[in-house]
Amino acid sequence: MNLYLYPEKKDWESILKRPTQSLEDLEATVNQIFLDVQRNGDIALKKYTSMFDGVNLESLLVSQSEFDEAESRVSEALKKAIQAAKKNIESFHKSQVQGSKKIETVSGVSCWSETRAIERIGLYIPGGTAPLFSTVLMLAAPAKIAGCKQISLFSPPNKQGKIANEILYAAKLCGVDKVYKLGGIQAIAAMTFGTESIEKVYKIFGPGNQFVTAAKQVATKYGVAIDMPAGPSEVLVVADATSNPAFVAADLLSQAEHGVDSQVVLLSKEETVIEKVQSKIETQLAVLPRKEIAQQALNNSVFVVLKEDTAILEMINLYAPEHLILATETPDFFVQNVQNAGSVFIGNYAPESVGDYASGTNHTLPTSGFARAFSGVNLSSFTKRITFQEISKQGLENIAETVMLMAEAEGLQAHKNAVAIRLKS
Amino acid sequence: MNLYLYPEKKDWESILKRPTQSLEDLEATVNQIFLDVQRNGDIALKKYTSMFDGVNLESLLVSQSEFDEAESRVSEALKKAIQAAKKNIESFHKSQVQGSKKIETVSGVSCWSETRAIERIGLYIPGGTAPLFSTVLMLAAPAKIAGCKQISLFSPPNKQGKIANEILYAAKLCGVDKVYKLGGIQAIAAMTFGTESIEKVYKIFGPGNQFVTAAKQVATKYGVAIDMPAGPSEVLVVADATSNPAFVAADLLSQAEHGVDSQVVLLSKEETVIEKVQSKIETQLAVLPRKEIAQQALNNSVFVVLKEDTAILEMINLYAPEHLILATETPDFFVQNVQNAGSVFIGNYAPESVGDYASGTNHTLPTSGFARAFSGVNLSSFTKRITFQEISKQGLENIAETVMLMAEAEGLQAHKNAVAIRLKS
Repeated sequence: MNLYLYPEKKDWESILKRPTQSLEDLEATVNQIFLDVQRNGDIALKKYTSMFDGVNLESLLVSQSEFDEAESRVSEALKKAIQAAKKNIESFHKSQVQGSKKIETVSGVSCWSETRAIERIGLYIPGGTAPLFSTVLMLAAPAKIAGCKQISLFSPPNKQGKIANEILYAAKLCGVDKVYKLGGIQAIAAMTFGTESIEKVYKIFGPGNQFVTAAKQVATKYGVAIDMPAGPSEVLVVADATSNPAFVAADLLSQAEHGVDSQVVLLSKEETVIEKVQSKIETQLAVLPRKEIAQQALNNSVFVVLKEDTAILEMINLYAPEHLILATETPDFFVQNVQNAGSVFIGNYAPESVGDYASGTNHTLPTSGFARAFSGVNLSSFTKRITFQEISKQGLENIAETVMLMAEAEGLQAHKNAVAIRLKS
Repeated sequence: MNLYLYPEKKDWESILKRPTQSLEDLEATVNQIFLDVQRNGDIALKKYTSMFDGVNLESLLVSQSEFDEAESRVSEALKKAIQAAKKNIESFHKSQVQGSKKIETVSGVSCWSETRAIERIGLYIPGGTAPLFSTVLMLAAPAKIAGCKQISLFSPPNKQGKIANEILYAAKLCGVDKVYKLGGIQAIAAMTFGTESIEKVYKIFGPGNQFVTAAKQVATKYGVAIDMPAGPSEVLVVADATSNPAFVAADLLSQAEHGVDSQVVLLSKEETVIEKVQSKIETQLAVLPRKEIAQQALNNSVFVVLKEDTAILEMINLYAPEHLILATETPDFFVQNVQNAGSVFIGNYAPESVGDYASGTNHTLPTSGFARAFSGVNLSSFTKRITFQEISKQGLENIAETVMLMAEAEGLQAHKNAVAIRLKS
């Protein structure tokens, strides 16, 4: 843990510096697999699945009997929890539906926008030891509300050629159309180009390791949209004397257990608060199953004592945290003035884990400071807006002079003609 | 011009194929200039400006006296036109302001989103023979409404070291904070890394040639957001017997004059409509100042006769045009069912050029089929949404079971602890 007392502003950037990731090293690998999948389709996909996942598959598509089996193996209690979380996620994302407002900018010139779902999307769900089925809910539930017609989900199989039961259960519950046993760079390549058995998609969502992240970046070169660039998960907590040090410690640890590269930041005006939290961390860490991971993440954690709330605010906005927890007596100042953050948790009873699973907000959020320019995944991530203009003859007459003068000044005579020829008629 | 009568569906993709662009060839050049700007800052910027724009500049920043001089050289009539267009663009983009709706997903768990402006943005405006000042309005006016704090504009200088008067006038009118005489890859690199004289930005907007487009793509690797990927401009017109062939010809030509790679598509159920339009194109083309450019673009144009409105709709959605003009008696069918398009123009008196300049809709739109997944630039392009959750002790108790079960099933014990420790208190 790194403690900084009242650091000078010129040092803030280096104190808050995240470990840089390099796509460059991975791009050659990504390009090679992309080319292979583009050329050889399913044969290439099966080859890489054998190579990287250690399993030879007849079919990449999950069958109905596999769904049925998965459903029978998830406990009723967990099913109820997943259904409850889904309901909350749906409520919150339904509240984001945007209407269409028609306005007349000039008499006879009506303009409006309408929302349309992105028709074909691909969701990537990582495999590995812990099945991240919560991400299925976070991506598939809003996609369904948005009206996406073809939702395909990709997740790497284990050595037995299976995807975790919970992932399959959640996918089916959310109405995912097709689930493929396919992960890594080859999954992103399949979504980008399509193969004999897999339809290409227009937008790719979901987290992944550094290979998946690099592959998503390369996919954008081929005209596929992605949800956002990805980096390690992170939390910034603001605590004061009214915070409960044990709660704060638990929140920092729940971030730290994600991975050795997780980022943990604690800001306070009170050095004693930080000392108390550190002591609670030690106690709680000792009994965690993932304590080695959490310990490594904590080695890079940053604890800063600052003089004023305004300085804390400034540091929040400079860092642009994925998750911001405001465990202070007066969170309103920060709520009103925060500019850069993914999702904000207010009060002593708002741990990040509630938002990770079930409050209703989305947990696919901008990391690595991307919150300066990106929103987390939300309903609009699954849609686009089309603009419309309906213009009457009178409307065109009212706006003609403006258009013709500007077109002429830009040297675009045919643009002017398109108006002039209608006026003459 | 390429005419297709009732083509079979299996041939549609190849008929509508756009010329593919390759970023690969340009990436080496982009990477080299990026590295140089990252290392050498302003010195590198001035070197490339001398090399590519043929002018040695003392300062890249446009001075107050240059703004004053520019303003004095724009005619009063054009100023009025620019002001009128700005007013319409502002009206339409103000109508896109999103409110904040707080909902309780579970009793005691409140969730909502709030909009925040992206603080620092960079606008790229191409130079060249025609000064595209309309793009200044399309980007800077919405940015100002969104509340962006630092709006920097970049445009390459001419051989006299100047930026077009109209661009400077429009920039000042819209409240752009700083204008830099800097173009090409080096401008995108400066926005990405910042230099001694230029602050880095969080998001880059605006059109450009293939070098600028490739540079924007590379900028995303360094964590900078971009408005959208870019390609040549395009229009798809649907015409029937009630269309005026001269109007349709004028619209197709106004697209064709943009550049030799512009895409022009005309769909109709009537072969005679297409014949009449082609005849009008010949007449109108002959007197166009940019007829060589338009002629080359027309060589690649696609005219298709189809049997049914449903087939026309399907072809529109497959092509996903940047601009869609519905010059038909019954446009409603297409308006209601179009899924993929940038901006739609309805009726015989709605030429694309009105939307290019002054109707109020944005002219920065998705090309190359990106309309399948991307919106055109709109107010939300300049903002992001932050989600918030405020949870009471009772609220946490209500949702605790769901969160703890899911955390445990994902193998994240510290996530569960963060809830459990609060329940125990």
